[in-house]
Amino acid sequence: MSFYDVLHRRRDTRGEFTGAPIPDDVLRRVLTAAHAAPSVGLSQPWDFIVVRDRDTRRAFRDHVQAERSVFATELDGERAETFARIKVEGIMESSLGIVVTYDPERGSPAVLGRHAIADAGLYSVCLAIQNLWLAATAEGLGVGWVSFYREDELRRLLDIPATVRPVAWLCVGPVACLPDTPDLERHGWRNRLPLDDVLHQERYTRRPSR
Amino acid sequence: MSFYDVLHRRRDTRGEFTGAPIPDDVLRRVLTAAHAAPSVGLSQPWDFIVVRDRDTRRAFRDHVQAERSVFATELDGERAETFARIKVEGIMESSLGIVVTYDPERGSPAVLGRHAIADAGLYSVCLAIQNLWLAATAEGLGVGWVSFYREDELRRLLDIPATVRPVAWLCVGPVACLPDTPDLERHGWRNRLPLDDVLHQERYTRRPSR
Repeated sequence: MSFYDVLHRRRDTRGEFTGAPIPDDVLRRVLTAAHAAPSVGLSQPWDFIVVRDRDTRRAFRDHVQAERSVFATELDGERAETFARIKVEGIMESSLGIVVTYDPERGSPAVLGRHAIADAGLYSVCLAIQNLWLAATAEGLGVGWVSFYREDELRRLLDIPATVRPVAWLCVGPVACLPDTPDLERHGWRNRLPLDDVLHQERYTRRPSR
Repeated sequence: MSFYDVLHRRRDTRGEFTGAPIPDDVLRRVLTAAHAAPSVGLSQPWDFIVVRDRDTRRAFRDHVQAERSVFATELDGERAETFARIKVEGIMESSLGIVVTYDPERGSPAVLGRHAIADAGLYSVCLAIQNLWLAATAEGLGVGWVSFYREDELRRLLDIPATVRPVAWLCVGPVACLPDTPDLERHGWRNRLPLDDVLHQERYTRRPSR
Protein backbone atom coordinates (compact mmCIF):
# COMPACT_ATOMS: atom_id res chain seq x y z
CA MET A 1 0.00 0.00 0.00
CA SER A 2 1.23 3.48 -0.78
CA PHE A 3 1.63 5.98 2.04
CA TYR A 4 -1.59 7.87 1.24
CA ASP A 5 -3.54 4.60 0.86
CA VAL A 6 -2.53 3.67 4.39
CA LEU A 7 -3.37 7.11 5.72
CA HIS A 8 -6.82 7.29 4.18
CA ARG A 9 -7.78 3.61 4.74
CA ARG A 10 -7.06 3.84 8.49
CA ARG A 11 -10.25 3.43 10.54
CA ASP A 12 -11.22 3.19 14.20
CA THR A 13 -12.36 -0.44 14.39
CA ARG A 14 -14.66 -2.03 16.95
CA GLY A 15 -16.91 -4.63 15.33
CA GLU A 16 -14.52 -5.94 12.68
CA PHE A 17 -11.91 -7.84 14.74
CA THR A 18 -11.49 -11.54 13.94
CA GLY A 19 -9.45 -12.39 17.07
CA ALA A 20 -6.74 -14.11 14.99
CA PRO A 21 -3.23 -13.85 16.45
CA ILE A 22 -0.79 -11.14 15.40
CA PRO A 23 2.54 -12.62 14.21
CA ASP A 24 5.43 -11.55 16.46
CA ASP A 25 7.35 -9.84 13.65
CA VAL A 26 4.30 -7.81 12.65
CA LEU A 27 3.69 -6.66 16.24
CA ARG A 28 7.34 -5.73 16.55
CA ARG A 29 7.22 -3.58 13.38
CA VAL A 30 4.11 -1.82 14.64
CA LEU A 31 5.66 -1.08 18.04
CA THR A 32 8.93 -0.01 16.41
CA ALA A 33 6.93 2.44 14.30
CA ALA A 34 5.32 3.89 17.43
CA HIS A 35 8.72 4.22 19.09
CA ALA A 36 10.06 6.09 16.03
CA ALA A 37 7.73 9.04 16.66
CA PRO A 38 9.10 12.52 17.31
CA SER A 39 9.15 13.65 20.93
CA VAL A 40 9.79 16.90 22.72
CA GLY A 41 13.48 17.11 23.64
CA LEU A 42 13.86 13.50 22.37
CA SER A 43 12.31 12.50 25.70
CA GLN A 44 10.45 9.48 24.23
CA PRO A 45 8.09 9.66 27.22
CA TRP A 46 5.88 6.74 26.14
CA ASP A 47 5.55 3.16 27.39
CA PHE A 48 3.65 0.35 25.70
CA ILE A 49 1.96 -2.40 27.73
CA VAL A 50 0.84 -5.38 25.66
CA VAL A 51 -2.19 -6.97 27.33
CA ARG A 52 -3.26 -10.44 26.18
CA ASP A 53 -4.61 -11.86 29.44
CA ARG A 54 -8.35 -12.40 29.07
CA ASP A 55 -9.16 -11.81 32.73
CA THR A 56 -7.46 -8.40 32.64
CA ARG A 57 -9.27 -7.53 29.43
CA ARG A 58 -12.62 -8.68 30.83
CA ALA A 59 -12.17 -6.52 33.92
CA PHE A 60 -11.37 -3.52 31.72
CA ARG A 61 -14.28 -4.28 29.40
CA ASP A 62 -16.70 -4.35 32.36
CA HIS A 63 -15.40 -0.97 33.52
CA VAL A 64 -15.78 0.47 30.00
CA GLN A 65 -19.37 -0.80 29.78
CA ALA A 66 -20.16 0.97 33.04
CA GLU A 67 -18.65 4.23 31.73
CA ARG A 68 -20.62 3.84 28.53
CA SER A 69 -23.78 3.84 30.66
CA VAL A 70 -22.61 6.99 32.45
CA PHE A 71 -22.30 8.80 29.13
CA ALA A 72 -25.66 7.43 27.91
CA THR A 73 -27.47 9.06 30.81
CA GLU A 74 -26.31 12.48 29.52
CA LEU A 75 -28.20 12.00 26.26
CA ASP A 76 -31.82 12.66 25.30
CA GLY A 77 -34.15 11.57 22.51
CA GLU A 78 -32.51 11.09 19.12
CA ARG A 79 -28.98 11.30 20.58
CA ALA A 80 -29.73 8.53 23.06
CA GLU A 81 -31.26 6.32 20.36
CA THR A 82 -28.36 6.88 17.98
CA PHE A 83 -25.79 6.19 20.69
CA ALA A 84 -27.55 2.94 21.64
CA ARG A 85 -26.64 1.55 18.20
CA ILE A 86 -22.94 2.41 18.45
CA LYS A 87 -20.32 -0.10 19.60
CA VAL A 88 -17.61 1.71 21.59
CA GLU A 89 -15.00 -1.02 22.10
CA GLY A 90 -13.67 -4.35 20.82
CA ILE A 91 -11.62 -5.25 23.89
CA MET A 92 -12.43 -8.97 23.98
CA GLU A 93 -12.86 -9.47 20.20
CA SER A 94 -9.48 -7.95 19.28
CA SER A 95 -6.27 -10.01 19.49
CA LEU A 96 -4.72 -7.92 22.24
CA GLY A 97 -4.67 -4.52 23.87
CA ILE A 98 -1.81 -2.04 23.75
CA VAL A 99 -1.95 0.48 26.56
CA VAL A 100 0.10 3.60 25.91
CA THR A 101 1.22 5.75 28.83
CA TYR A 102 3.01 9.06 29.44
CA ASP A 103 5.93 9.36 31.87
CA PRO A 104 6.67 13.06 32.53
CA GLU A 105 9.90 12.14 34.36
CA ARG A 106 11.52 10.58 31.29
CA GLY A 107 14.45 12.79 30.28
CA SER A 108 13.85 15.19 33.18
CA PRO A 109 14.64 17.54 34.85
CA ALA A 110 15.27 19.86 31.85
CA VAL A 111 13.23 18.55 28.92
CA LEU A 112 14.24 20.66 25.92
CA GLY A 113 11.12 22.38 24.53
CA ARG A 114 8.81 21.68 27.48
CA HIS A 115 9.48 24.61 29.81
CA ALA A 116 6.73 26.80 28.31
CA ILE A 117 4.22 24.06 27.41
CA ALA A 118 3.80 21.45 30.11
CA ASP A 119 1.62 19.26 27.88
CA ALA A 120 4.27 18.95 25.14
CA GLY A 121 5.29 15.53 26.49
CA LEU A 122 1.71 14.33 26.35
CA TYR A 123 1.55 15.52 22.74
CA SER A 124 4.58 13.33 21.93
CA VAL A 125 2.78 10.25 23.22
CA CYS A 126 -0.12 10.95 20.86
CA LEU A 127 2.26 11.18 17.90
CA ALA A 128 3.52 7.70 18.80
CA ILE A 129 -0.07 6.44 18.91
CA GLN A 130 -0.76 7.74 15.41
CA ASN A 131 2.44 6.08 14.11
CA LEU A 132 1.27 2.83 15.69
CA TRP A 133 -2.19 3.18 14.19
CA LEU A 134 -0.91 3.82 10.68
CA ALA A 135 1.68 1.02 10.84
CA ALA A 136 -1.03 -1.39 12.01
CA THR A 137 -3.14 -0.28 9.02
CA ALA A 138 -0.19 -0.89 6.68
CA GLU A 139 0.03 -4.42 8.16
CA GLY A 140 -3.68 -5.06 7.54
CA LEU A 141 -4.59 -4.80 11.23
CA GLY A 142 -7.37 -2.78 12.79
CA VAL A 143 -6.97 -0.45 15.76
CA GLY A 144 -9.75 0.81 18.04
CA TRP A 145 -9.03 3.52 20.62
CA VAL A 146 -11.11 3.03 23.75
CA SER A 147 -11.62 6.21 25.78
CA PHE A 148 -14.60 5.26 27.98
CA TYR A 149 -12.55 4.71 31.13
CA ARG A 150 -11.22 6.44 34.24
CA GLU A 151 -7.45 6.79 34.26
CA ASP A 152 -7.15 5.68 37.90
CA GLU A 153 -9.05 2.49 37.19
CA LEU A 154 -6.67 1.57 34.37
CA ARG A 155 -3.69 2.49 36.57
CA ARG A 156 -4.91 0.12 39.25
CA LEU A 157 -5.58 -2.71 36.79
CA LEU A 158 -2.09 -2.62 35.23
CA ASP A 159 0.06 -1.50 38.20
CA ILE A 160 0.80 1.83 36.51
CA PRO A 161 2.55 4.21 38.96
CA ALA A 162 0.71 7.35 40.06
CA THR A 163 3.26 9.56 38.27
CA VAL A 164 2.60 7.86 34.92
CA ARG A 165 -0.55 8.73 32.96
CA PRO A 166 -2.48 6.22 30.84
CA VAL A 167 -3.26 7.86 27.49
CA ALA A 168 -4.97 5.11 25.49
CA TRP A 169 -6.15 1.52 25.42
CA LEU A 170 -5.80 0.43 21.82
CA CYS A 171 -7.59 -2.74 20.66
CA VAL A 172 -5.39 -4.28 17.96
CA GLY A 173 -5.69 -7.25 15.65
CA PRO A 174 -6.64 -8.64 12.26
CA VAL A 175 -10.00 -7.44 10.98
CA ALA A 176 -12.52 -8.80 8.48
CA CYS A 177 -12.42 -5.43 6.71
CA LEU A 178 -11.68 -1.74 7.18
CA PRO A 179 -14.93 0.13 6.47
CA ASP A 180 -14.88 3.03 3.99
CA THR A 181 -16.91 5.25 6.32
CA PRO A 182 -16.23 5.94 10.02
CA ASP A 183 -18.67 4.12 12.34
CA LEU A 184 -19.96 7.35 13.86
CA GLU A 185 -20.78 8.77 10.42
CA ARG A 186 -22.43 5.53 9.29
CA HIS A 187 -24.64 5.52 12.39
CA GLY A 188 -25.61 9.19 11.98
CA TRP A 189 -23.79 10.44 15.09
CA ARG A 190 -21.73 13.08 13.30
CA ASN A 191 -20.33 13.79 9.82
CA ARG A 192 -16.87 14.58 8.54
CA LEU A 193 -16.39 18.30 7.91
CA PRO A 194 -15.03 19.83 4.70
CA LEU A 195 -11.35 20.77 5.04
CA ASP A 196 -12.13 24.40 4.25
CA ASP A 197 -14.26 24.65 7.40
CA VAL A 198 -11.11 24.28 9.52
CA LEU A 199 -8.60 26.09 7.31
CA HIS A 200 -7.51 29.69 7.93
CA GLN A 201 -5.07 32.01 6.19
CA GLU A 202 -2.67 34.22 8.16
CA ARG A 203 -5.02 34.64 11.15
CA TYR A 204 -7.78 32.74 12.91
CA THR A 205 -11.21 33.55 11.41
CA ARG A 206 -14.19 33.06 13.70
CA ARG A 207 -16.91 30.84 12.26
CA PRO A 208 -19.94 29.15 13.79
CA SER A 209 -18.60 25.98 15.45
CA ARG A 210 -20.08 22.76 14.01
CA MET B 1 8.37 5.90 -0.90
CA SER B 2 6.83 2.98 0.94
CA PHE B 3 4.86 3.60 4.12
CA TYR B 4 7.67 2.50 6.45
CA ASP B 5 10.24 4.54 4.48
CA VAL B 6 8.15 7.64 5.12
CA LEU B 7 7.67 6.79 8.77
CA HIS B 8 11.34 6.18 9.50
CA ARG B 9 12.72 8.99 7.30
CA ARG B 10 10.56 11.63 9.05
CA ARG B 11 12.71 14.13 10.98
CA ASP B 12 12.20 17.29 12.99
CA THR B 13 13.88 19.85 10.71
CA ARG B 14 15.28 23.24 11.63
CA GLY B 15 18.45 23.99 9.69
CA GLU B 16 17.61 22.23 6.42
CA PHE B 17 14.85 24.45 4.97
CA THR B 18 15.52 25.94 1.53
CA GLY B 19 12.63 28.45 1.62
CA ALA B 20 11.38 27.32 -1.80
CA PRO B 21 7.59 27.60 -2.23
CA ILE B 22 5.27 24.65 -1.61
CA PRO B 23 3.07 23.95 -4.65
CA ASP B 24 -0.65 24.46 -3.83
CA ASP B 25 -1.62 20.88 -4.65
CA VAL B 26 1.12 19.52 -2.37
CA LEU B 27 0.03 21.73 0.53
CA ARG B 28 -3.58 20.68 -0.03
CA ARG B 29 -2.66 16.96 0.13
CA VAL B 30 -0.72 17.52 3.33
CA LEU B 31 -3.59 19.40 4.99
CA THR B 32 -6.11 16.84 3.73
CA ALA B 33 -3.98 14.15 5.38
CA ALA B 34 -4.05 16.04 8.68
CA HIS B 35 -7.82 16.45 8.43
CA ALA B 36 -8.21 12.67 7.84
CA ALA B 37 -6.97 11.88 11.35
CA PRO B 38 -9.15 10.02 13.84
CA SER B 39 -10.84 12.16 16.49
CA VAL B 40 -12.78 11.48 19.65
CA GLY B 41 -16.49 11.32 18.82
CA LEU B 42 -15.61 12.41 15.25
CA SER B 43 -15.31 15.90 16.72
CA GLN B 44 -12.45 16.95 14.38
CA PRO B 45 -11.54 19.64 16.92
CA TRP B 46 -8.55 20.98 14.98
CA ASP B 47 -8.00 24.16 12.95
CA PHE B 48 -5.07 24.92 10.68
CA ILE B 49 -3.79 28.47 10.21
CA VAL B 50 -1.37 28.87 7.30
CA VAL B 51 1.03 31.72 8.07
CA ARG B 52 3.15 33.12 5.23
CA ASP B 53 3.37 36.77 6.27
CA ARG B 54 6.98 37.57 7.13
CA ASP B 55 6.15 40.23 9.72
CA THR B 56 3.98 37.77 11.65
CA ARG B 57 6.68 35.12 11.45
CA ARG B 58 9.36 37.57 12.54
CA ALA B 59 7.32 38.59 15.59
CA PHE B 60 6.86 34.94 16.52
CA ARG B 61 10.54 34.16 15.91
CA ASP B 62 11.56 37.00 18.26
CA HIS B 63 9.24 35.63 20.94
CA VAL B 64 10.68 32.12 20.49
CA GLN B 65 14.23 33.42 20.79
CA ALA B 66 13.32 35.06 24.08
CA GLU B 67 11.81 31.80 25.38
CA ARG B 68 14.91 29.94 24.25
CA SER B 69 16.92 32.23 26.53
CA VAL B 70 14.53 31.52 29.41
CA PHE B 71 15.19 27.78 29.05
CA ALA B 72 18.95 28.33 28.68
CA THR B 73 19.11 29.99 32.09
CA GLU B 74 17.86 26.71 33.67
CA LEU B 75 20.95 24.86 32.41
CA ASP B 76 24.43 24.45 33.86
CA GLY B 77 27.84 23.40 32.55
CA GLU B 78 27.78 20.71 29.86
CA ARG B 79 24.00 21.01 29.37
CA ALA B 80 24.26 24.74 28.72
CA GLU B 81 27.14 24.27 26.26
CA THR B 82 25.34 21.50 24.40
CA PHE B 83 22.13 23.50 24.20
CA ALA B 84 24.00 26.53 22.84
CA ARG B 85 24.82 24.51 19.69
CA ILE B 86 21.21 23.43 19.05
CA LYS B 87 18.92 25.31 16.65
CA VAL B 88 15.35 25.21 17.99
CA GLU B 89 13.37 26.72 15.10
CA GLY B 90 13.34 27.43 11.36
CA ILE B 91 10.49 29.95 11.39
CA MET B 92 11.94 32.39 8.85
CA GLU B 93 13.89 29.85 6.77
CA SER B 94 10.91 27.54 6.17
CA SER B 95 8.37 28.27 3.42
CA LEU B 96 5.47 28.85 5.81
CA GLY B 97 4.11 28.08 9.24
CA ILE B 98 1.08 25.93 9.98
CA VAL B 99 -0.40 26.65 13.39
CA VAL B 100 -2.62 23.86 14.68
CA THR B 101 -5.22 24.61 17.36
CA TYR B 102 -7.72 22.74 19.52
CA ASP B 103 -11.36 23.86 19.82
CA PRO B 104 -13.03 22.01 22.73
CA GLU B 105 -16.46 23.34 21.66
CA ARG B 106 -16.39 21.55 18.30
CA GLY B 107 -19.07 18.85 18.37
CA SER B 108 -20.15 19.79 21.90
CA PRO B 109 -21.99 19.53 24.26
CA ALA B 110 -21.86 15.70 24.32
CA VAL B 111 -18.63 14.61 22.64
CA LEU B 112 -18.79 10.81 22.43
CA GLY B 113 -15.81 9.34 24.28
CA ARG B 114 -14.73 12.51 26.09
CA HIS B 115 -16.84 12.44 29.27
CA ALA B 116 -14.22 10.52 31.29
CA ILE B 117 -11.06 11.98 29.70
CA ALA B 118 -11.21 15.72 29.18
CA ASP B 119 -7.93 15.73 27.22
CA ALA B 120 -9.18 13.26 24.59
CA GLY B 121 -9.92 16.14 22.20
CA LEU B 122 -6.41 17.47 22.60
CA TYR B 123 -5.10 13.99 21.80
CA SER B 124 -7.06 14.05 18.52
CA VAL B 125 -5.33 17.26 17.47
CA CYS B 126 -1.95 15.60 17.97
CA LEU B 127 -2.97 12.67 15.75
CA ALA B 128 -3.75 15.20 13.01
CA ILE B 129 -0.32 16.76 13.49
CA GLN B 130 1.41 13.40 13.02
CA ASN B 131 -0.61 12.73 9.86
CA LEU B 132 0.47 16.15 8.58
CA TRP B 133 4.11 15.47 9.45
CA LEU B 134 4.20 12.10 7.71
CA ALA B 135 2.38 13.37 4.62
CA ALA B 136 4.84 16.26 4.38
CA THR B 137 7.68 13.72 4.57
CA ALA B 138 6.08 11.68 1.79
CA GLU B 139 6.00 14.87 -0.30
CA GLY B 140 9.70 15.54 0.33
CA LEU B 141 9.04 18.42 2.73
CA GLY B 142 10.51 18.98 6.15
CA VAL B 143 8.52 19.83 9.28
CA GLY B 144 9.87 21.40 12.47
CA TRP B 145 7.66 21.64 15.56
CA VAL B 146 8.40 24.79 17.55
CA SER B 147 7.42 24.58 21.22
CA PHE B 148 9.43 27.44 22.72
CA TYR B 149 6.47 29.81 23.07
CA ARG B 150 3.72 30.91 25.42
CA GLU B 151 0.25 29.96 24.23
CA ASP B 152 -1.21 33.39 25.07
CA GLU B 153 1.42 35.13 22.97
CA LEU B 154 0.57 32.99 19.94
CA ARG B 155 -3.17 33.55 20.58
CA ARG B 156 -2.61 37.30 20.54
CA LEU B 157 -0.49 37.22 17.39
CA LEU B 158 -3.02 35.24 15.32
CA ASP B 159 -6.35 36.44 16.84
CA ILE B 160 -7.03 32.99 18.28
CA PRO B 161 -10.04 33.12 20.66
CA ALA B 162 -9.47 32.48 24.36
CA THR B 163 -11.50 29.25 24.20
CA VAL B 164 -9.25 27.80 21.48
CA ARG B 165 -5.85 26.39 22.42
CA PRO B 166 -2.78 26.64 20.18
CA VAL B 167 -1.08 23.22 20.08
CA ALA B 168 1.78 23.67 17.62
CA TRP B 169 3.60 25.98 15.27
CA LEU B 170 4.93 23.77 12.50
CA CYS B 171 7.62 25.12 10.17
CA VAL B 172 7.01 23.49 6.78
CA GLY B 173 8.79 23.54 3.44
CA PRO B 174 11.24 21.94 1.06
CA VAL B 175 14.53 20.89 2.67
CA ALA B 176 18.04 20.28 1.36
CA CYS B 177 17.95 16.86 3.06
CA LEU B 178 16.35 14.88 5.87
CA PRO B 179 19.18 13.88 8.23
CA ASP B 180 19.51 10.20 9.24
CA THR B 181 19.96 11.10 12.91
CA PRO B 182 17.77 13.41 15.01
CA ASP B 183 19.42 16.79 15.68
CA LEU B 184 19.34 16.32 19.46
CA GLU B 185 21.13 12.97 19.19
CA ARG B 186 23.70 14.37 16.74
CA HIS B 187 24.48 17.23 19.13
CA GLY B 188 24.76 14.92 22.14
CA TRP B 189 21.67 16.23 23.94
CA ARG B 190 19.98 12.83 24.31
CA ASN B 191 19.94 9.41 22.60
CA ARG B 192 17.17 7.26 21.23
CA LEU B 193 16.24 4.45 23.62
CA PRO B 194 15.97 0.76 22.69
CA LEU B 195 12.33 -0.27 22.15
CA ASP B 196 12.61 -2.90 24.89
CA ASP B 197 13.23 -0.15 27.47
CA VAL B 198 9.66 1.06 26.99
CA LEU B 199 7.90 -2.26 26.32
CA HIS B 200 5.94 -4.15 29.00
CA GLN B 201 3.95 -7.38 28.99
CA GLU B 202 0.57 -7.65 30.75
CA ARG B 203 1.43 -5.10 33.47
CA TYR B 204 3.62 -2.04 33.94
CA THR B 205 7.10 -2.98 35.17
CA ARG B 206 8.98 -0.32 37.09
CA ARG B 207 12.46 0.46 35.72
CA PRO B 208 14.92 3.25 36.35
CA SER B 209 13.73 6.16 34.19
CA ARG B 210 16.27 7.26 31.55
